[in-house]
Amino acid sequence: MSINTPVSQDRVAVHAMSGAASILADYASIRATTLRLVESLSAEDCAIQAMPEASPAKWHLAHSTWFFEAFVLAPNIVDYTPISETYLYLFNSYYNAMGRQFHRPHRGLLSRPSLDEVLDYRRAVDDRMTAFIESASDDVVRRVAPTIETGLNHEQQHQELILTDIKALFSANPLRPVYRAAPASSTQHAQNAAGDVRWIQFREGLREIGSTGDRFCYDNETPRHRIWVDAFALAERPVSNGEFAAFIADGGYERPEIWLSDGWNAVQRNAWTQPLYWEKSDGVWSQLTLAGMRRIDASEPVCHLSYYEADAFARWSGARLPTEAEWEIAAAASIAEGHQSLRGTLLEDERFHPAPCPAGVEGGVRLQRMIGDVWEWTSSAYAPYPGYQSPEGALGEYNAKFMCNQLVLRGGSCATPQSHIRETYRNYFAAEARWQFSGLRLARNG
Amino acid sequence: MSINTPVSQDRVAVHAMSGAASILADYASIRATTLRLVESLSAEDCAIQAMPEASPAKWHLAHSTWFFEAFVLAPNIVDYTPISETYLYLFNSYYNAMGRQFHRPHRGLLSRPSLDEVLDYRRAVDDRMTAFIESASDDVVRRVAPTIETGLNHEQQHQELILTDIKALFSANPLRPVYRAAPASSTQHAQNAAGDVRWIQFREGLREIGSTGDRFCYDNETPRHRIWVDAFALAERPVSNGEFAAFIADGGYERPEIWLSDGWNAVQRNAWTQPLYWEKSDGVWSQLTLAGMRRIDASEPVCHLSYYEADAFARWSGARLPTEAEWEIAAAASIAEGHQSLRGTLLEDERFHPAPCPAGVEGGVRLQRMIGDVWEWTSSAYAPYPGYQSPEGALGEYNAKFMCNQLVLRGGSCATPQSHIRETYRNYFAAEARWQFSGLRLARNG
Amino acid sequence: MSINTPVSQDRVAVHAMSGAASILADYASIRATTLRLVESLSAEDCAIQAMPEASPAKWHLAHSTWFFEAFVLAPNIVDYTPISETYLYLFNSYYNAMGRQFHRPHRGLLSRPSLDEVLDYRRAVDDRMTAFIESASDDVVRRVAPTIETGLNHEQQHQELILTDIKALFSANPLRPVYRAAPASSTQHAQNAAGDVRWIQFREGLREIGSTGDRFCYDNETPRHRIWVDAFALAERPVSNGEFAAFIADGGYERPEIWLSDGWNAVQRNAWTQPLYWEKSDGVWSQLTLAGMRRIDASEPVCHLSYYEADAFARWSGARLPTEAEWEIAAAASIAEGHQSLRGTLLEDERFHPAPCPAGVEGGVRLQRMIGDVWEWTSSAYAPYPGYQSPEGALGEYNAKFMCNQLVLRGGSCATPQSHIRETYRNYFAAEARWQFSGLRLARNG
Amino acid sequence: MSINTPVSQDRVAVHAMSGAASILADYASIRATTLRLVESLSAEDCAIQAMPEASPAKWHLAHSTWFFEAFVLAPNIVDYTPISETYLYLFNSYYNAMGRQFHRPHRGLLSRPSLDEVLDYRRAVDDRMTAFIESASDDVVRRVAPTIETGLNHEQQHQELILTDIKALFSANPLRPVYRAAPASSTQHAQNAAGDVRWIQFREGLREIGSTGDRFCYDNETPRHRIWVDAFALAERPVSNGEFAAFIADGGYERPEIWLSDGWNAVQRNAWTQPLYWEKSDGVWSQLTLAGMRRIDASEPVCHLSYYEADAFARWSGARLPTEAEWEIAAAASIAEGHQSLRGTLLEDERFHPAPCPAGVEGGVRLQRMIGDVWEWTSSAYAPYPGYQSPEGALGEYNAKFMCNQLVLRGGSCATPQSHIRETYRNYFAAEARWQFSGLRLARNG
Repeated sequence: MSINTPVSQDRVAVHAMSGAASILADYASIRATTLRLVESLSAEDCAIQAMPEASPAKWHLAHSTWFFEAFVLAPNIVDYTPISETYLYLFNSYYNAMGRQFHRPHRGLLSRPSLDEVLDYRRAVDDRMTAFIESASDDVVRRVAPTIETGLNHEQQHQELILTDIKALFSANPLRPVYRAAPASSTQHAQNAAGDVRWIQFREGLREIGSTGDRFCYDNETPRHRIWVDAFALAERPVSNGEFAAFIADGGYERPEIWLSDGWNAVQRNAWTQPLYWEKSDGVWSQLTLAGMRRIDASEPVCHLSYYEADAFARWSGARLPTEAEWEIAAAASIAEGHQSLRGTLLEDERFHPAPCPAGVEGGVRLQRMIGDVWEWTSSAYAPYPGYQSPEGALGEYNAKFMCNQLVLRGGSCATPQSHIRETYRNYFAAEARWQFSGLRLARNG
Repeated sequence: MSINTPVSQDRVAVHAMSGAASILADYASIRATTLRLVESLSAEDCAIQAMPEASPAKWHLAHSTWFFEAFVLAPNIVDYTPISETYLYLFNSYYNAMGRQFHRPHRGLLSRPSLDEVLDYRRAVDDRMTAFIESASDDVVRRVAPTIETGLNHEQQHQELILTDIKALFSANPLRPVYRAAPASSTQHAQNAAGDVRWIQFREGLREIGSTGDRFCYDNETPRHRIWVDAFALAERPVSNGEFAAFIADGGYERPEIWLSDGWNAVQRNAWTQPLYWEKSDGVWSQLTLAGMRRIDASEPVCHLSYYEADAFARWSGARLPTEAEWEIAAAASIAEGHQSLRGTLLEDERFHPAPCPAGVEGGVRLQRMIGDVWEWTSSAYAPYPGYQSPEGALGEYNAKFMCNQLVLRGGSCATPQSHIRETYRNYFAAEARWQFSGLRLARNG
Repeated sequence: MSINTPVSQDRVAVHAMSGAASILADYASIRATTLRLVESLSAEDCAIQAMPEASPAKWHLAHSTWFFEAFVLAPNIVDYTPISETYLYLFNSYYNAMGRQFHRPHRGLLSRPSLDEVLDYRRAVDDRMTAFIESASDDVVRRVAPTIETGLNHEQQHQELILTDIKALFSANPLRPVYRAAPASSTQHAQNAAGDVRWIQFREGLREIGSTGDRFCYDNETPRHRIWVDAFALAERPVSNGEFAAFIADGGYERPEIWLSDGWNAVQRNAWTQPLYWEKSDGVWSQLTLAGMRRIDASEPVCHLSYYEADAFARWSGARLPTEAEWEIAAAASIAEGHQSLRGTLLEDERFHPAPCPAGVEGGVRLQRMIGDVWEWTSSAYAPYPGYQSPEGALGEYNAKFMCNQLVLRGGSCATPQSHIRETYRNYFAAEARWQFSGLRLARNG
Repeated sequence: MSINTPVSQDRVAVHAMSGAASILADYASIRATTLRLVESLSAEDCAIQAMPEASPAKWHLAHSTWFFEAFVLAPNIVDYTPISETYLYLFNSYYNAMGRQFHRPHRGLLSRPSLDEVLDYRRAVDDRMTAFIESASDDVVRRVAPTIETGLNHEQQHQELILTDIKALFSANPLRPVYRAAPASSTQHAQNAAGDVRWIQFREGLREIGSTGDRFCYDNETPRHRIWVDAFALAERPVSNGEFAAFIADGGYERPEIWLSDGWNAVQRNAWTQPLYWEKSDGVWSQLTLAGMRRIDASEPVCHLSYYEADAFARWSGARLPTEAEWEIAAAASIAEGHQSLRGTLLEDERFHPAPCPAGVEGGVRLQRMIGDVWEWTSSAYAPYPGYQSPEGALGEYNAKFMCNQLVLRGGSCATPQSHIRETYRNYFAAEARWQFSGLRLARNG
C-alpha cells in the first residue's frame, strides 16, 4: 500500500532495493522474523503435520530456505555444491521443473533432519547468501535481486502458514496448548456487539485493477487492466462474531436454501455447525485462539470460515460477497484518500488474532480494516487477468498452475506481515478451506 | 439464435408462445422427441446408472415429467391428487424446496417403477397437462406459460443427458452396444486432417453480453450487462482429433508443466492418457461413438475432454481458452452478419457425433460451427452475472446454487436440440467431467 | 441329510446318479427351478446390482450356465465353438485359470445381453448339454458326471443368491416391491414369543466330522477327520426375533463391552441399531421380507445378522456361538436318531422367510430346525480341514482360495434348496455380511 | 520357556514373584529396558506416527505407564489424585471400561506433552508405584501382583512395538536414518544360502496345548486343553531370504493361482512385488534394517511378510503353514528334550534383526530358532480356546475382543524380550500386516 499510513511507513521497501546493502538488510530482517515465530515451539511442535493440507513448521523453515538455495545460489554459483542433495528433494514443494518432490502428505513423517539440523541449514544458506551477495558485482546483484525479492515474499507467506498450521495442530490436542499468551489488554474486551453495519457507495465505471508495477508484486497481480464495474456498495467493516452467531441461531447451518449446492454437501459431509475452532458449552460460544480458548468477542471479525459459510451468511443477510475487482477498487480509493482506518491487525502486532472493530471512525463512514485482521473471501474465482503471462522458468509454476477451483481472498490477516500485503494482492484457497484466518465483508449492488 | 439461418428456421418458437394452442404444440413436439430418443433402448438399458454423476434413461424420462406435475399441475389445480406420492419423492432431483430427494447415486437401484410404468406416468401427466391447458383461462395460461417453457427447456437438457448417459453405460459393456447405427454417409469420411487453423480478430471495447430478453433464456443468462474486453482472436473452428492426436504424440499427457496443478493430479489419479472413449490398437486410435467403435477421423472436432485436457492442449499449442464473454461476443457478431457457417451438428441431425469441419467456408475466413458439434470449454468459472437475481421459489434452485467449482461451456453439441441452444446459453460442468460432448476452440490475445 | 424325513424323501439324489438318464433328469429339474425363481421378476429387476457384493439376477442366470459351457462342453467337445466368446469372459466369476474376469462391481452395468438373450443362452447350453450327454459313451458320462454334479450344486447356490440379492435390491426401493406375496396362512401368526430356550447336552469325546463320501459334497467338507470336542450344550432352536428385540431394548447396540472390537467399529461405522431390514415405527418393529413389509413375529428365528451381531447377542445372553464341529456333531446325532424336528423351512416351501418355531416337539427336548430357516453363524473361521487337498484344475479355485477372513455358517436357510443342504455343508461369509438369511443358535460349555 | 537353556537362565522370573522386593526388581528392570530402547531417538522421532496402525514411541512410553496408573494406583489408593486427568484419557488405548479414548490415528498429533514431560510422567508413576508397593501389606501385594505382572508383560509388548513402529517411521524417510548401527560382526556374513530344508516328524495323537499355569501367561493361552492332531512334519528352520528371493524370481507375485483370493487382491491393491522393506537396485536385493540399508543375506530368515505372502510361499513350495497347535506341540517337545537350538535372536541380543541360521546343529536334525528371530505365521485364526473365559473387569478387554479376523503368530522375534516369550504365547495380526518381524516356517502332512 503506497499511502502515508502506519501500514507503509515502516514497511520493508522490498521492491525499491537496488543495492546489495539494501537486499542484505531485508533478507536479514525477514529471515529473523521467521525464526521469532518458532521461538516458543518445541522440536516436536515443529515436526508434526496437522493434516495433509498443512505442513510442519520445520518444513516451512526448510522449504523457505530451499528456495534461496535452489533459485539463487545453485544457478548463480559455478560448480555449486548443495548443502544436502536430499534436502533439494525433500524441501521442494511443487516445482516440477526443479525435480521430483517428496509426497506432500508425508511431510510430517520426517523426524529427520531434526529441527536443529534445519536451523543449521538455515544458517548455512544465510551465510552463503550473504557471502554471495557481498561479493557479487552490481550486474549480478541486479540480475538476482528480483528472485531474492520473490524469495523473501515467499518466506513471508510461509510465516503466515506457520501460524495457521500450528493452530491446526494445537486444535487437535486436548491439552489445548497455547502458542503465545495474549497480552493483558487484548483479553479485556467489551463483548459489545459491533453496531449496525454502514455502507460505502461506489459508482459504476470503467476502472483499472492490478499492480501498477511501481513496487513488488506477484505475477498474478499483472497486468493492470481495465474492467467495467457496476455501481456497488461495500460494508464499512468485516462481519463480526456477533452477527455470525445470529446466523447460527437463526438456523443458518440447517437451511439448504441459503447454501451453494457444494456448500450444503460440505455442511453435511463434515457435520459443520459452526466456524472452525468454535465450541459451545453451556450455551456460550468459545473459540480456540493461538492464546488458548476464549469466549468469543461479539465485536471481533468472524474468522475461520470456508467460502461456503461466507457465501451462505451473505445470502442469509440479503447481501452478497464482493468481487475481487470491487474489493480492490474500494481499497484503492480509500488509500488514495489517505484513510488510516483501512489498516487492521497484522503480524507485527503480535496479536495473532483479529481485533474488535471500533464502533466508528473519525471523519465519517469509512472503510475499516480491509488490510489485516481477516482475509476476506470474494466471489471471484482465481483466474488469470486478461493478458496475463506466466513467468519463464521454474518460477512460472509459482501461481499460474493453481488458477482453477479456487476463490480469491483479499486484504491479509492478523498473521500477514505488513510489508507483504497490498491492495492488489490475490490470495486463493479452495472453497472448503477453513484453517486460514478467513472471514468476509458484505457487498451489495449500488 | 435469432438469425435467419437453418438453426432458427425450424426451431420451436418457445418464447413466443402466447396462447394455449402454441403451448400445446410445443409441449407435444418436445415430449415426443424425448420418446424417440429411447425408442431403440431396452427396459434394461433404461434402468441402469452408469456412474454416480449419470442417471438412468428411465429416471430422465420420469424426472422431466415430474417437473410438470410438481411445478405446473400441483400448484395450479385445486385439491390436486398426485399420480403417485412416491414419484414426487423419487423423481425430484435436487429441489430442497420441493421436499426430500432420493439419494442420487441410488437412482440406478430403481427397477421399479418399470419403464412401462414410467411411460404410463408420462402419458398420464401429458393428459393432465393437455386437459389443464385446454381448460385454463387466458390469465392462467399467461401465468403458467413461463414455467411450462422452463419445463420444456429442462426436458431438452435431459434429452442431451439421455444420450451422454447411455453412451457412458454402453462404454462399460464389452459387447459394445450400438445406440443408433451411423448413416452410410457419415462413415465415409476422408480422414483428412483439418488444415492449419485460421484466426478471427476482435477489437477491444466495452461490450454487452447476456440475454436481451427477446426470447426464452435461463436466469443465469441475465442480466445483460456491460463488460470490457481486450482485443482477442478466436480460431475459426474447434480443435480437431488430428490436432489432439499430435498433442498426445508429443507427450502431452506426460508433461506436468503444461497442466494445471489439479489437472496433473487428475491425470495421475485417473491414469488418463487419451480422451475418454479413445482406444489405441496397433498404433491406431479408435473411439467409441453412439454408432459403435470407429477409427478416429482426424478432421472431426475432438470431444469428451475434461477442462484440464482442454486447458493443457491450449497451453501446449501456445494459445489459451476463450473467456465466455469473448466466445459470446464473437458468436453474436457472426450471427449479426448472418454467417451460416456458425451452425454445426445438432440433435435433430441424428448424427449423435460431431461432424468433420470443412476445409473452409465460402466468403472468407469465418467462425464455423460454434453452435453444435461440441460444447466448448471456456476459461470462465461459472458465476452469477453482475446484478443477477435468482428467481423466487423452488425454481430459484435451478441454476444459482451450482455457481461454484464449475466452468462454463458454450455453444451446444451434436446432442443438443436446435431450439434449446443460443449464443447466450451457459452450460457448466466440473473441470474433471468428460462424459459430455465437450471440446474446445482456441483463443489468443488480439 | 441321509435320514428318513421329508428332507430326504423328495430330494434329488444327485450323488447317486450313475447314468445319462439320471443326470439329465437332475439337470432338467434344477435348471427349471432356477427359472421359476425369476418368473415374477422383470428384465429391469434382473439387470440391476444392489451392491458390489451382490450380483444381478441376470448375471446369476448366465454365470450358472457359463459353468456348464466352460467346464463341461468346451473341454469335452472337439473343436467346440462357444455360443459367445464374450460371454465366456463376462460370466466367469473368479476363475483365474479360465481367463480374465469382468470386474465384479460392474456386473450391474451390463444392460446387454438382455434377459431374453440370457434366457436364450440358457436354452442353447441346455440343448447342447442334453445332446452331449445323450450321445456320450458311458465312459464319458462317468468322467463328466462329477463336474455336472458340481455344476448343479453350484447352480443351487446361485438360486439362493438370486433371492438374497433381489431382496437387497428391493430394500433400496421406496416403492417396497413384493417378490412373492405371502401365502395367507403365513401372515396369520400368533406373535407369541418363543418360550424359554432348552438345551441339549453333548458329551466330550474324540469325534469325526466331514463328509463320509457316500454322497456329493464340496471339497471343503473333506477329508472326514477326527477332532476332540469337550462337552457342550446346544440350544434346541435358533434365537428368535423376540429375544433379539430384548437385546436391542437392553441397549445391545450401545454397549461396547459385549462386542468384538471389529464388531464395535462396524456398529459405529455403519450406524447399525438393528438387524438389516428391520425398521421401527411408532415403537413397533417391522421387517422387510420378500413378501413386503411385515410386523415382526417374535417367535420367528431372527435373521439378517452379521457375525458381529450374532456374537454380541451370544455374549449378552451369557452363552456363546457353537463351533462348526459342535454344530455338525449335534446335527449328525439328531439325524442318526431320526428326529424329524431337524428340518425347517427350505426353498421348496416357497415361504422365502424363516418360519416360527413350534413351542416344542413331540418326544421331548430335541434339536429343531437346524436344516433350513436361517444359516447359523458358528465361531469357526473358515479354514481347510486337516489333510485337505484342493482339487486339481480350475475347479480347485472353487473353495480353497477363500479360506481366510471368513466365518463358517451351517444348516442352510429358507432360500436353500433341499437337495443342496446337508449336515456337513460349510457356507462362509465375512463377519460384516448381513444380506444372507443369517441367524444364530446358542451354545455353551457342557 | 521352562527349560534349562540360555533362554530361561537370565529371564526375569516374573511369575514367581511373590514378594514386594521381587516385584520391585522386575518392575525396575523392565521399565529401564524400555528407556534404553528410546535412548538413541530424538524427541521428534518419538512424536511421529508412521501410519494409523502404528503409534509414536512417546505414546508407547506414556501408555505403558498409564497402565500402571490406571490399573494399579488409581483403584488401590484411597482418594487417588491422577498425575493428569488428561493423560488418563490421552493414553488409554482401547479400554472402553476405562473411559473414552483419544482417536487412535491422531496419536501422532500430540506434540504435547513433550517427550520430557512423558519421561517425567514415567518417573512420577515409577515413584508412586515404588512407594505404593513398599508400603503395601503382604495381602495387598498378593492382590495387586497379577496386575503388575500383566502390566510388565504389557510393557514388553510395547518394547517390541517401539522397534517395529520406529522402523516403519524411518522407512518413510529418504535420509534413511539408522536406529542402531549394526555390530561389526553382524555385517560380515557369508551371503551363503541356507541349505535344503530338513523336516522333523511328529506323530498323530491326542495332545494338550495351552498354558500349564506354572508361570505367567495371558488369558488367551488358557485353558490348557486337549486337541487331536494328525501326523505332521515341521521344517527345522524358518524360510530364508534366499528361498523367498527364488519365489519372487519364479513369478511368485504374479501368479494368482498360488494366492488366497484376499491375498491376490492385496497384492494388486498395494502393488506388492516383494516383502516390506526390500528394494531392488541393479538386480540386487537390499532391505531396510534398523541398522540402515543392507544387501540381503540369503541365509537369514525372511521377514516383514504378510500372512498372504507366507501362505502363497508355502503353497508355491508344495507345503503349507503349520497350525498353531502343531507349532506348539513341536516346540514343547523340543523344549522337553532340552534342545538349545530352539532359541534364536531376541531383544536382549540387541541385533534387532533376524540372524542367519546355521547350516545344521550338533546332535542331528533339530528344530532351530522357533523362539526369536521372526514371528511365524500359523494357519490358525485367532480364536478363544475351548472353555476360554475372558477375565472380569477392564482387563477382560485385553485379548478377547480381538478374536476375529486375525491370524496367530508364534515364537517371538528379534524384537521380543526373552522373558516375554514362551512356547504357548499367542500373538495375532491381521493377514495384511507386514510391519512386524513376521516370517514363516513350513509344515506338511506327516
